[in-house]
Amino acid sequence: MRQEQQELTVTTSGHGLYEITEKVRAFTKAQRIVTGQLTAYCRHTSASLVIQENADPDVQRDLLVFFQRLVPDGDPLFVHTMEGPDDMPAHVKSALTQTSITIPIVDSKLALGTWQGLYLFEHRKMPHVRKIVLHVVGV
Amino acid sequence: MRQEQQELTVTTSGHGLYEITEKVRAFTKAQRIVTGQLTAYCRHTSASLVIQENADPDVQRDLLVFFQRLVPDGDPLFVHTMEGPDDMPAHVKSALTQTSITIPIVDSKLALGTWQGLYLFEHRKMPHVRKIVLHVVGV
Amino acid sequence: MRQEQQELTVTTSGHGLYEITEKVRAFTKAQRIVTGQLTAYCRHTSASLVIQENADPDVQRDLLVFFQRLVPDGDPLFVHTMEGPDDMPAHVKSALTQTSITIPIVDSKLALGTWQGLYLFEHRKMPHVRKIVLHVVGV
Repeated sequence: MRQEQQELTVTTSGHGLYEITEKVRAFTKAQRIVTGQLTAYCRHTSASLVIQENADPDVQRDLLVFFQRLVPDGDPLFVHTMEGPDDMPAHVKSALTQTSITIPIVDSKLALGTWQGLYLFEHRKMPHVRKIVLHVVGV
Repeated sequence: MRQEQQELTVTTSGHGLYEITEKVRAFTKAQRIVTGQLTAYCRHTSASLVIQENADPDVQRDLLVFFQRLVPDGDPLFVHTMEGPDDMPAHVKSALTQTSITIPIVDSKLALGTWQGLYLFEHRKMPHVRKIVLHVVGV
Repeated sequence: MRQEQQELTVTTSGHGLYEITEKVRAFTKAQRIVTGQLTAYCRHTSASLVIQENADPDVQRDLLVFFQRLVPDGDPLFVHTMEGPDDMPAHVKSALTQTSITIPIVDSKLALGTWQGLYLFEHRKMPHVRKIVLHVVGV
């Protein structure tokens, strides 16, 4: 069994979902793994990973506004406000979604469903540079 | 190290939790892996995976009603309503739970705790056929 | 490729976040894996795992109070109250966070971001003894 790693950089322009499916697919394909798995790992606590529908952009818009309503900016509940009203909500949204996702590689392809895309979920309002580690293992 | 994969099909009769522990255990046992890990991966964006208590069925009932209240069907917040009032809530519930779960295999057994069961969490009201990829790797 | 496993015991004094980063780092270092990955798996349904900021303790306090407000103890919605008013909320909080997290090992180190720490999230009010299985695989 072999393994390969790569750090992916995603430059965001503020909160929203940023699809990384094609970059992850290209990295996986280049490793020529027939059977194995890919793990994506987000190195942040105010951005995270989600697998979501990538057909209708409204899904991404709705996800964003739902999370904003569930964890509102400037909530007086929060003490940790050092970096502004969207600081602690970003941490909570990260905890509510995923930091690592593992996708099997079957017949040389990621086992993503027909409508599945992999997204970096940026929870901060300001632009950020985000790092995601990709790790494939297999034969 | 060896690896094996299998696609599991779960036919649901609408929203609820469907336990797949025994099927996953049987697949794992058949591979005769002593030390390793199993990854379950859900190929959908309106169904997901959770590990939950499998002793009292009320836990599954309570989980279901909590998520229904947290992400209500027909919420006017949502724009993506193509497939009905439970369409976008299903995507949100998937984002709030897990798409992939990895369980170590210790002494030829899944390291599930005493009360842990693995469930497919169906978020749509109508029956669906769901696909879960199982992947074991180990020795 | 090699793999090693260890069960980590965390004794909690009631609900809150318990950082296990150093213990996980020490286990990983001792296995002398240069390139690979570590999976942490929580063997419970009323405690879970999160990766969160470990610089300001207020983040952990805020996470705790947010989850308490989101899933309040004694909610009349819940039928499963066998072990008290914090029983079912603990299961819900586990479902909303993560049971397994996989972190790549790059250049002999866990690929944790600068501010990332790995935490056991205890959701019960009473002290508990929690078990987390650590599994490394790599070369």
